[in-house]
Amino acid sequence: MYFDNSATTIKKPENFIKCFEEIYKSQKYGNPSRGGHKKSINSMLKILETKKSLAKITGANPEDIVFLDNCTYGMNFVIKSLVNSNDHVITSITEHNSVLRPLYQSGADLSFLDIDEKKELEYEKLEDIKKKNTRFLIINHASNVLANVNDLDRLHKFAKDNNLIMIVDIAQTAGNTEIDISKYDNSIFVFTGHKSLYGPTGIGGIIKNGDFDFKDVFSGGSGIKSFDKCHPNEFPTIFEIGTGNFISQIAFNESLKFILETGISNINKKVKSLTKSFYEGICDLENIKIYSKKPEGDFSPIVSFNISDISSSDISNILDEEYDIQTRPGAHCAPLIHEKFNTQKQGMVRFSFSYFNTFEEIDEAIEIIRQLNNKI
Amino acid sequence: MYFDNSATTIKKPENFIKCFEEIYKSQKYGNPSRGGHKKSINSMLKILETKKSLAKITGANPEDIVFLDNCTYGMNFVIKSLVNSNDHVITSITEHNSVLRPLYQSGADLSFLDIDEKKELEYEKLEDIKKKNTRFLIINHASNVLANVNDLDRLHKFAKDNNLIMIVDIAQTAGNTEIDISKYDNSIFVFTGHKSLYGPTGIGGIIKNGDFDFKDVFSGGSGIKSFDKCHPNEFPTIFEIGTGNFISQIAFNESLKFILETGISNINKKVKSLTKSFYEGICDLENIKIYSKKPEGDFSPIVSFNISDISSSDISNILDEEYDIQTRPGAHCAPLIHEKFNTQKQGMVRFSFSYFNTFEEIDEAIEIIRQLNNKI
Repeated sequence: MYFDNSATTIKKPENFIKCFEEIYKSQKYGNPSRGGHKKSINSMLKILETKKSLAKITGANPEDIVFLDNCTYGMNFVIKSLVNSNDHVITSITEHNSVLRPLYQSGADLSFLDIDEKKELEYEKLEDIKKKNTRFLIINHASNVLANVNDLDRLHKFAKDNNLIMIVDIAQTAGNTEIDISKYDNSIFVFTGHKSLYGPTGIGGIIKNGDFDFKDVFSGGSGIKSFDKCHPNEFPTIFEIGTGNFISQIAFNESLKFILETGISNINKKVKSLTKSFYEGICDLENIKIYSKKPEGDFSPIVSFNISDISSSDISNILDEEYDIQTRPGAHCAPLIHEKFNTQKQGMVRFSFSYFNTFEEIDEAIEIIRQLNNKI
Repeated sequence: MYFDNSATTIKKPENFIKCFEEIYKSQKYGNPSRGGHKKSINSMLKILETKKSLAKITGANPEDIVFLDNCTYGMNFVIKSLVNSNDHVITSITEHNSVLRPLYQSGADLSFLDIDEKKELEYEKLEDIKKKNTRFLIINHASNVLANVNDLDRLHKFAKDNNLIMIVDIAQTAGNTEIDISKYDNSIFVFTGHKSLYGPTGIGGIIKNGDFDFKDVFSGGSGIKSFDKCHPNEFPTIFEIGTGNFISQIAFNESLKFILETGISNINKKVKSLTKSFYEGICDLENIKIYSKKPEGDFSPIVSFNISDISSSDISNILDEEYDIQTRPGAHCAPLIHEKFNTQKQGMVRFSFSYFNTFEEIDEAIEIIRQLNNKI
C-alpha cells in the first residue's frame, strides 16, 4: 500500500501510462523549436493542447504557462528573476525548502507568518509584519506536512491592497483542489506534474496572471533571436532554456485529461474522504500525536503524526518492511514546521493519499497503526 | 525521411520505447529521496544502473555523474558555479548559445579560438590567446554545424599545461563518438540524452573528472540536511534541485544498453558512412556550397550547405512540404559560425544523421538535392 503521494504519485491514469510508446513509435514529434518542420510543429501543437488542459484545470490562460522541470526550478527561476536583496518578503513557517532556500539565497529580508493551534495561517498578523519595502507574498497553497489549505482569496486581497506580487506554491494542490488563477491578478503560481496532477516526472512550471519584469536567470539556445547575446526576455521564452522535456509535456496531457474527465470536485471529495477516514481511525489512539490539521473545511490529503516518542524513521521503516506500506518520515524538507513542533529529531510520519487509494487500504492501514499503537 | 538528428533523434531503440509502460505499470518506483522506503530505493538503484551504463560509454565513474534536464542546464550550472567575472576564458567561435550566452552572462573576459579553412580549430593559436588570468577552456567536442570533432587530447594537454579547467560540451558526440573521460583530469563534460544517446527528453547532465569547488546556483529540497539554510554543497546533491526526472532517468538505461550492445565504434562507423555518402553525393553539384568539414578523419554526422543564395529556410521548407524530409535551416543557435561564413541572413541547411537512418534514405535525399540544384 502506497501512501507517499505527496512525494510522488506512482499510480497514474491508464492512458498516460500507454501514451509514451505511442508517441515514440509514431516518430511524429521533433524538437519543438520555433519555425521548424512539420515534426517540430506537431510537438508545438501538442504542447499547446497540454497547456490548454492545464489552463482549464487552473483557470489560467495557456499562453501564461511555461513548462520547466519541476516545481523547485519554478521557484528558483521566479525568485532569482524578481526578488532583490533590498526587498522585504512575507512568507510562512510552513514553506518547503524549495521556497525557503531560494529566499535565503536572495538575501531579501524575510518575515514568516506563523500558524495557530488549528494549523491555519495567522492571517490577521499580515498587517503587523508588513514593511515599507514589502514587495512579495510567497506562500504555499497547502503545506506538505500540515494539510492546511490556505485561503487564497484572503491572501490575494492583502497582496492587492498592499501592491505585492503573490507567488504561490501549488505543488500539493494542483489537480486535487479547485483553484481559479484568473481571480488573482499580479500573481504567479508554481506547480509540479508528478504529484497530484498524476503526470510524468521532469515536468513542472510557472503559471502567471499579470505582467512581470522577469530578469534572465539561465540562458542558452532559444530557437529565436540567435544573434542576440542575451536570452530573449519575453515570456515564456525567458524560462525556456535549451530543449525542454517535450515528449513528457505531450504525454502530460493524458494525465490532465483524466483529471478533467474525473472532475476536480470528485477528486477532491474522494481524497478528503480517504483522509478523514484515516484521521478518524487513528486520532483517538492513546499513543498517537497528530500534527496535521483536523480534516474539517478545506484540507489536503495528508495526515502527519508520531507514535509516542518513537523516531518517525523507525515507524516508517517498520511499516515498509513488515507491512509493505510506504510513507514518508523525517523533516519533509519543511524545517520550520519541525522547529515549531520541536520534532527536528523525531520527524513525523506522513501519510499522503491519492485518488487511486481505496477505502479498503485505509481500513487496513488503520488496523496496522492500531496494532503498533498497542505494542507501545 | 528525418535528417534533424542533431536537434533530437526521433527513432529510439525498441526496448526504450516500451519501457515507460512497464516502469509506470509496475508501481515499483517512488521518489528517490535519500533514506526512503523500498520504492524510493528501487528508483535509486535503477538510476545507479543508468549511471553505470553512461559511465561505461564515456569512461567516467558513476559517482561523478549528475542528471539534470538537458545540456543547457548543465552548462548554466557549471559556468554559474565556477566562472567569475574576473576570469579569462578561452572558448571558440563554433560554440552553441548554450555555452556562449551563459559565458556572456558571467561577465568573464572571453577569447574565441577560430577555425582554419579545413574547419578545424586553430589549436596553434591557443598559446597566443592565453592570459595570466585564464582559468577555463570551454569548448565543444563537435560543433553542431561544422562536423569537426575536436582533438580532446590536444586541448586537454594545453589545459593541463596551463592549469585550466577544461569544460566540454558533448551534446553532439555522446553515443556516436568514442570518448574516454578518464584520460582528462580536471575536466567537466556536459551531455544531453535525447540526441545521439537515443534517450528521453528531459535528461542531460554533468560528468566530472576531478574535484571542483562548486558554488550553489539553485537551491531547494535535497532530502538530506533539511535544517541547513543552504543546499548541501557536495556533488551530485549540489545540482540535484527538487525531484529529478527520475522515471526518465530509469528509462534512459534502455537507450544506453542499446548503445553498449551495438558498440560505439559500430555506431560511429555507420553514421560516418552515411554522412560521407551524402556529402559525396552532393558536393560536386554546381550550386551547392558546403560549409561543414570534408568527411575525412574524425567528423560528426552533419552536412551543412546552401543552394546558391536561396534562403536556407526556403530550402528546408520545400524539403519538408514537398518531399517530407526534415532538416534544420537558420542559425542553429551558433551565431559566431554564421558570422564567420557571413550566413547570418541566409542561414544554412543542416542535414544530421542517426544510426537509424538508412543508405536508401541517403540515396533518395541526394537525388532530391540534385533535382533542387538543377532547378536553379
